[in-house]
Amino acid sequence: MHFRFMRRSLLLFMIFISLQAGAQNTNFENDTVAIDAIYKHVLTESVAYDWLEGLCKQIGHRLSGSANYHAAVEYFRQIMDTIGLDTIYVQELWVPHWERGDAEQVRVISSSEGAFDYATLALGNSLGTGPDGLTAEVIEVHTLEELEEMADEDVTGKIIFFNRPMDQSLINMLNAYVRAADQRTLGPAMAADKGAAGAIVRSLASSTDHIPHTGSTNYRPDGRNIPALSISTADADHLSRLLRKGEVTVFMRNTSHFLSDKKSFNLIGEIRGQTHADEIILVSGHLDSWDVGDGAHDDGAGCVHAIDVLHTYRKMGYKPRRTIRAVLYSNEENGLRGGNAYADQALSRGEYHLAALESDLGGFTPRQFNFEAERSVFIPRFRAVGQWSDLMEPYGITFGPGGSGADISPLKPQGALLIGFRPDTQRYFDLHHSPADVFETVNKRELHLGSASIAALIFLIDKHGLPD
Amino acid sequence: MHFRFMRRSLLLFMIFISLQAGAQNTNFENDTVAIDAIYKHVLTESVAYDWLEGLCKQIGHRLSGSANYHAAVEYFRQIMDTIGLDTIYVQELWVPHWERGDAEQVRVISSSEGAFDYATLALGNSLGTGPDGLTAEVIEVHTLEELEEMADEDVTGKIIFFNRPMDQSLINMLNAYVRAADQRTLGPAMAADKGAAGAIVRSLASSTDHIPHTGSTNYRPDGRNIPALSISTADADHLSRLLRKGEVTVFMRNTSHFLSDKKSFNLIGEIRGQTHADEIILVSGHLDSWDVGDGAHDDGAGCVHAIDVLHTYRKMGYKPRRTIRAVLYSNEENGLRGGNAYADQALSRGEYHLAALESDLGGFTPRQFNFEAERSVFIPRFRAVGQWSDLMEPYGITFGPGGSGADISPLKPQGALLIGFRPDTQRYFDLHHSPADVFETVNKRELHLGSASIAALIFLIDKHGLPD
Repeated sequence: MHFRFMRRSLLLFMIFISLQAGAQNTNFENDTVAIDAIYKHVLTESVAYDWLEGLCKQIGHRLSGSANYHAAVEYFRQIMDTIGLDTIYVQELWVPHWERGDAEQVRVISSSEGAFDYATLALGNSLGTGPDGLTAEVIEVHTLEELEEMADEDVTGKIIFFNRPMDQSLINMLNAYVRAADQRTLGPAMAADKGAAGAIVRSLASSTDHIPHTGSTNYRPDGRNIPALSISTADADHLSRLLRKGEVTVFMRNTSHFLSDKKSFNLIGEIRGQTHADEIILVSGHLDSWDVGDGAHDDGAGCVHAIDVLHTYRKMGYKPRRTIRAVLYSNEENGLRGGNAYADQALSRGEYHLAALESDLGGFTPRQFNFEAERSVFIPRFRAVGQWSDLMEPYGITFGPGGSGADISPLKPQGALLIGFRPDTQRYFDLHHSPADVFETVNKRELHLGSASIAALIFLIDKHGLPD
Repeated sequence: MHFRFMRRSLLLFMIFISLQAGAQNTNFENDTVAIDAIYKHVLTESVAYDWLEGLCKQIGHRLSGSANYHAAVEYFRQIMDTIGLDTIYVQELWVPHWERGDAEQVRVISSSEGAFDYATLALGNSLGTGPDGLTAEVIEVHTLEELEEMADEDVTGKIIFFNRPMDQSLINMLNAYVRAADQRTLGPAMAADKGAAGAIVRSLASSTDHIPHTGSTNYRPDGRNIPALSISTADADHLSRLLRKGEVTVFMRNTSHFLSDKKSFNLIGEIRGQTHADEIILVSGHLDSWDVGDGAHDDGAGCVHAIDVLHTYRKMGYKPRRTIRAVLYSNEENGLRGGNAYADQALSRGEYHLAALESDLGGFTPRQFNFEAERSVFIPRFRAVGQWSDLMEPYGITFGPGGSGADISPLKPQGALLIGFRPDTQRYFDLHHSPADVFETVNKRELHLGSASIAALIFLIDKHGLPD
């Protein structure tokens, strides 16, 4: 009995040792070897794609304030639980609670081609038309300047149609999006100030198709707000052709509305650093999505990227020197309350963020990391990370200065090096904020290459630190 | 009357001048400016995506020897006609004429999980089982070496199941494909030599799904050949699990067969060079496809890339110094007769190819150009093109030594610099040679970025030439 017990203990001990060895046989001393091992591990072992499938198929879209959002917090909390983090907690906050209401309508009721409907989605934060809808003549503009120069009497009572396409001649579609987005974010408010009755906005989409895209528009608690609906790029082209042929009158109806603010949560999980636990390196995505499609690329992909970095370190037996913290933010899409609340809490707790990364441009093939920081720390830190660009080049990744992510931007004044994960942008804006952003558009290897790239960069920052 | 005639002539002359000016207002003197203009032109004006849609929707797949192939030759000949090339002609050749026959069957008839069917496709060039099919025990192998080492008596009469997955730990899936492909190309013939009755090959696919992929296997006119069918990656994993649990017997049936060789055509169109017409720069894809799906990425994309380069030069008013020739090859998939016939004709006509590019890895976002040539000319020419890599870097394109394309490879001994167009590889092998390679998987901007990248590189070679 005693002998058998010894044998059993020895066997258990040997299994324990071999598991430890299995987990720890990567040589993290050599950066090239370690990065190669990280990529190989993620590409063959990651389950981030399965996590994303569960999010999309079991829960689907999840606007902050909705029941689905709470289900998604619990979904990822349980996943964090299974991967053995040192700390998992939620940060409570209050978010705007906007609801889309009834299926929206944009109906051309008088035109040279008669009467017909366009598919439409209310812009996020839009007010409703009231149950009876509104009917008015449509006036097309292409820039805010063009609207600004119009006489108020030519705008009053009209529906302003913002129709500047994303610039297809650009290589990076993020730039094309940013340059066209003022029509959606600021256009309806400017039209309201000039007396317009409503706004129709061309979808911020890179493809020409019949899918309307939503996204936030500026809501002023103390100003005049008008209903604002989006139509697809193909329908916007059609409406523009129609307007060249004569007057067009449109009926629009939506019942979108705000309810009182609702409790929500940022979800946070971390591996505590071995030697510099007070230096936090943050990896993040946002857990909320628009209330259409699955929010698969925006930003389910970013959420699973962030958790996959921690999972990869655990599975590979990498023990970070610094604290690696995954944050899934609430309310990126219509308020940024999650990002602001997190940064406020960090400040009040005296936490120090050495670096913060956000993945919020989808799960496509990684192409670049962009870096930004306060002037006082940017140059030495960008120079330090720049020395690692040769290590990432074999994986098709370049480094450049540039914007990072909306949720982490409030950490910039606190001295963090901010990092934007930049995948290929060609397909992203075909799907972004639309019913087409579904799980089936995500490619497993592309998604996992994202996790691997982020895990590799965060490994380098953790191992080598950054200059002050 | 005289006055009116003069005014009309003047008006026509002014329209003519303004059209010329419109076509020629790009400054081709400055390389940076010219490349920017080429990209902008293609991204906003190209109709390559529409050409591809017509090919896929009106014709679909087009194995050489089939009626669809001939329809595709005529389809692209008419497109070449509309863009105003100097010469358009076909090169006659004879191609193998293989037909798939009846819908294939792979049926597990005895296993620990009972009896059921796997979806299957005959490999290209496979012979049929005969109308009664064949039934045999399945033996799994992972490498040709493993099969080689087996005793003939353990193989005789069996169905050999080749089941080595593509290596997911690699970054570039083309490498993973090349490393796994011997199972499909050489495996069945080796199994035949050892007395096997048939072969089942795991699909060369990067995704785990239920889609079987075809592709050519080695047919020996003078040797023993056995029926060879592919099953999907998910089914291959399932069959492997089944084999670990006990003996598995499979019924397989296909009626694939060769008919006598059939007349086919390479389609060729060119813009004649202004100053060095005898130096040919070739841009190409292959017009044939496997007989499933649309052949959208493989290689409809390459065909429209090649023609789009010529169309872009015409529309922009660029008059090349050298002859720019688009070739759409026949029979890349199951014989390479088109590529060989073209190179033979070039030799017999004394034509000189300065460079030859093939696009045959799909219509995804461009990442790299690979260059190869005979040793005697490689180093000076690669060094010459290497000086332009900075010009392409802003477009996310790198240069490297490496393989080019199957159809152009016979031009290598004739001294041409061979160029392989390398788009992102992550999604390509999910679709390659399968029913999933359809038009809907092609993204318009990604496809057009390919045309633009090729047009930019060919412009540089044409303008600056290459050292001997």
